Amino acid sequence: MVRWQPDARGRLEQAAMALYLERGFDQVTVADIADRAGLTERTFFRYFADKREVLFGGSVALSDRLVAAAAEAPAGLSPLDVLAAAFDDAARTFFGDGAERPRGRQAVIDAHPGLQERELIKLATLSTVLAGALRDRGVAEPAASLAAEAAVAVFKNAFARWLEGAEGADLAPILSRAFAEMKAVAAGR
Amino acid sequence: MVRWQPDARGRLEQAAMALYLERGFDQVTVADIADRAGLTERTFFRYFADKREVLFGGSVALSDRLVAAAAEAPAGLSPLDVLAAAFDDAARTFFGDGAERPRGRQAVIDAHPGLQERELIKLATLSTVLAGALRDRGVAEPAASLAAEAAVAVFKNAFARWLEGAEGADLAPILSRAFAEMKAVAAGR
Repeated sequence: MVRWQPDARGRLEQAAMALYLERGFDQVTVADIADRAGLTERTFFRYFADKREVLFGGSVALSDRLVAAAAEAPAGLSPLDVLAAAFDDAARTFFGDGAERPRGRQAVIDAHPGLQERELIKLATLSTVLAGALRDRGVAEPAASLAAEAAVAVFKNAFARWLEGAEGADLAPILSRAFAEMKAVAAGR
Repeated sequence: MVRWQPDARGRLEQAAMALYLERGFDQVTVADIADRAGLTERTFFRYFADKREVLFGGSVALSDRLVAAAAEAPAGLSPLDVLAAAFDDAARTFFGDGAERPRGRQAVIDAHPGLQERELIKLATLSTVLAGALRDRGVAEPAASLAAEAAVAVFKNAFARWLEGAEGADLAPILSRAFAEMKAVAAGR
């Protein structure tokens, strides 16, 4: 019989992140993580395929939410504004609890070239998926791909600024500013 | 005494690309490449650090050229137009011999996830370098980073369209169109 674990996933995440920051990603095993969380390795593998997925598992949920929000955005918005609305929604849904945990995750990734590569791949995949979401709204190529690339670039930029902490505790207003700045850059201002 | 090799580098590149396409990147050794080119492994390593560098060695020259062209672009251009001018210069300098060889290179990369990752990293690095080139011209952040990301996205998009072959034999006009399309997307058209 499987005993019910109160928030086992959250405990595993917290334990993994603390260990990655203390020792570096490569020096941490799944056994270490389970041990720190007071759970078994078997429980770990109920939630995560491997220790890398603790860092990147959220990207599928983020991508799904962005696609859903893009589909539901009001008709008549420009392609870039559709994605601005979708990222605004995702910023509030996924990153409303402050920058502290994302900042820890970023520190782990920044310390490890292999994880940086993984992050780049996730962002490239996100761009491809968002271009598809725009095409589903009837946006033609190359506008769909260019808007998706621009939006992901804006998100990357705003996210990094949010983690730096100088522009306030909320991601959404930084994102909104960054979209406006991208428009200004493209307009040649 | 080292015997002078007429265009040894070119012969090695050609041999490597042919073998990568025939057998797949992982199934080719440096010995195979040298053999096909009628040269020694030692000669190979005079030109390339490893067999991956045959595919990616050009990216440093491209990056250097873009930085130099960005520095020389006329004063008064917007950040995005500075990079449009730099990419136009690079398109004519590096990709003036038609799409056939770049198309072969792309086919090798597309068949291999590890090489795709390497390509993403090179593009991310290029974006970082170009943001620095804009800052050297006095462009402030976040405009420098956003313009660089947008320009690299445009280049990626135009390059892929060039390889598809439906828009003509020259990269430069496709690039110029793609920059205009990015501006239109950002302007909400």
